[in-house]
Amino acid sequence: MRLCDLAPAHIRAISPYQPGKPISELAREMGLAEESIVKLASNENPLGVGEKTREAMLKSLADIARYPDGNGFELKDALRRRYGVALDQIVLGNGSNDILELAAGAFLGPDRDAVYAQHAFAVYPLATQAAGARGIEVPARNFGHDLDAMLAAITPATRVLFIANPNNPTGTFIPGDELEAFLVRVPEHVLVVLDEAYTEYLTPDQRYDAIAWLPRFPNLLISRTFSKAYGLAGLRVGYGLGSPEVIDLLNRVRQPFNVCSVALSAAAAALFDDEFLSRSYALNCAGMAQLTEGFTQLGLDWIPSAGNFVTFKVGDGAGVNRRLLEQGVIVRPIGGYGMPEWLRVSIGLESENARFLAVLPAALG
Amino acid sequence: MRLCDLAPAHIRAISPYQPGKPISELAREMGLAEESIVKLASNENPLGVGEKTREAMLKSLADIARYPDGNGFELKDALRRRYGVALDQIVLGNGSNDILELAAGAFLGPDRDAVYAQHAFAVYPLATQAAGARGIEVPARNFGHDLDAMLAAITPATRVLFIANPNNPTGTFIPGDELEAFLVRVPEHVLVVLDEAYTEYLTPDQRYDAIAWLPRFPNLLISRTFSKAYGLAGLRVGYGLGSPEVIDLLNRVRQPFNVCSVALSAAAAALFDDEFLSRSYALNCAGMAQLTEGFTQLGLDWIPSAGNFVTFKVGDGAGVNRRLLEQGVIVRPIGGYGMPEWLRVSIGLESENARFLAVLPAALG
Repeated sequence: MRLCDLAPAHIRAISPYQPGKPISELAREMGLAEESIVKLASNENPLGVGEKTREAMLKSLADIARYPDGNGFELKDALRRRYGVALDQIVLGNGSNDILELAAGAFLGPDRDAVYAQHAFAVYPLATQAAGARGIEVPARNFGHDLDAMLAAITPATRVLFIANPNNPTGTFIPGDELEAFLVRVPEHVLVVLDEAYTEYLTPDQRYDAIAWLPRFPNLLISRTFSKAYGLAGLRVGYGLGSPEVIDLLNRVRQPFNVCSVALSAAAAALFDDEFLSRSYALNCAGMAQLTEGFTQLGLDWIPSAGNFVTFKVGDGAGVNRRLLEQGVIVRPIGGYGMPEWLRVSIGLESENARFLAVLPAALG
Repeated sequence: MRLCDLAPAHIRAISPYQPGKPISELAREMGLAEESIVKLASNENPLGVGEKTREAMLKSLADIARYPDGNGFELKDALRRRYGVALDQIVLGNGSNDILELAAGAFLGPDRDAVYAQHAFAVYPLATQAAGARGIEVPARNFGHDLDAMLAAITPATRVLFIANPNNPTGTFIPGDELEAFLVRVPEHVLVVLDEAYTEYLTPDQRYDAIAWLPRFPNLLISRTFSKAYGLAGLRVGYGLGSPEVIDLLNRVRQPFNVCSVALSAAAAALFDDEFLSRSYALNCAGMAQLTEGFTQLGLDWIPSAGNFVTFKVGDGAGVNRRLLEQGVIVRPIGGYGMPEWLRVSIGLESENARFLAVLPAALG
């Protein structure tokens, strides 16, 4: 038998994650100038990064031939000061994608289950599959998590349950009190991975403090990222917060230098740049209003979103996406999420949102 | 039963990789000024990076809020031009550590074996263990790989065989013709991961071209890094070259954005900076002579090394290491490699090597 046919069946069956199309790739494919392309496909921060963060990145380049600090002391210490957690409650990741994979790698395996919701982030089933575990997808309710059904789906073999709040790609939100009541009911043998990648975009009345729950729930792992509101998607850095025992296990499967030096320095600086975060939040509110008003004027359905993106219904998602690409506008088709009639668009600068709305009617056909 | 006790036994048993101590950590621990510390612990390039690479890094920062190109087109295209391989023969990694883990993740699992040599790179057993597979450690011969014994150790369940050439931490080297003859004899069901992290430091008469072997050996995966001779350890970027079928499987378990944008751009630039590579090679030759002459004068045993480091015998490795640290000199103890009487020192700048040699006699006690 040939080598690749001998790889585990669950590995051979993996269908890799489909990222948003890079600007450079569309430019090559369509023969367009990169400057003419608007990318609203990957929930990136259209403001870039703050000045303090830029300075930290530049400074870190001076020593780039050195390995990063594998323990990430500077960034962990910044997180400790910011959130009042202990250093041994923090694990750093190559983006929060890495945190999700570390949880799967440490707790899953053959004969174990993971529970996640329909229309939830694609990396949950992928990480489950890569670990050789069984995925249990729980049907969504109004495009969001059905917590009661997720609780009922837990088996004795369930080791991980993923929740995205807000959810990507649908933008749905679970209020803090509902989440807290849910955690009380989850059995102790299940690690709840609470993916808060978009938490910085919550409105003041939506905000809740999951970190304050950590002492009560040793089976809670909070996952966060610097790729969204902090504007560091290109650098790959996120973090997980949990009980020291859980964090210790994640560190055992973590690659020793999983986060690069530039990311470690940039994230430590970005964490305290409240002014940049406020500006990013305000821009997002304005852009969300701009886009959803545009959808309403066009008579399109859209799902109210708590993130920096919004998902809207077009019927032929693949066709509309193709026509938008021809106009140099990149959004995200979400057929892979079981929503082939919908597209997801990220909130951009006012001019980018306007460009998207301007070409949308023709793309709808 | 508590959650963490339910994690797979092979995960709970992992003892994480011990990296070289960062300068900042020693400075904190000993109350030393960072500038006074010499770090020769992680086989880093003491010259830093070349000018073209620096320019590429700076340029990439302008767009850092964008996700990296998950397909890594620019860097793969550079590798294609440099080495004449096809794009689908290349997988990119978060350092070559990531390539090693991808190989383990794609081909290993419970009821499968990996073969590696005693005193070989620590990540081989770690990646094997994280995948839940059985590791078969083959006794070394003269601190290097015993290829005949490794061949004899292969079982029907063996899926991966790791070879480091040159080997880290012992610096031993297998001539290309021996390696080629070995590959002919390895059964087709075993992926040979040829880790060439230090290949750029080989002398002209040692050099061989494993890439030219790829068409004949579809079970060969060559792993390389930009962390050593290219001076990009802080950015985390390496690559694997193999048959399209093997590369496709590795891409299935690869994190979608495993390499950051700065690393992708820097590596593409560094790959063609022959002048910098030549300077790095020349400095390494001179430094190797300087250190080994020093050892000889002190009457210390050392192992001839084909890398940018050399391993020398001190008796009480832990004690000598501690006394070196007190003098602000960081080398690498290798008790974890079954060599508690030895220390590994990286080739640094002439002044750094001299500083190390100056404090060594007192540290030897």
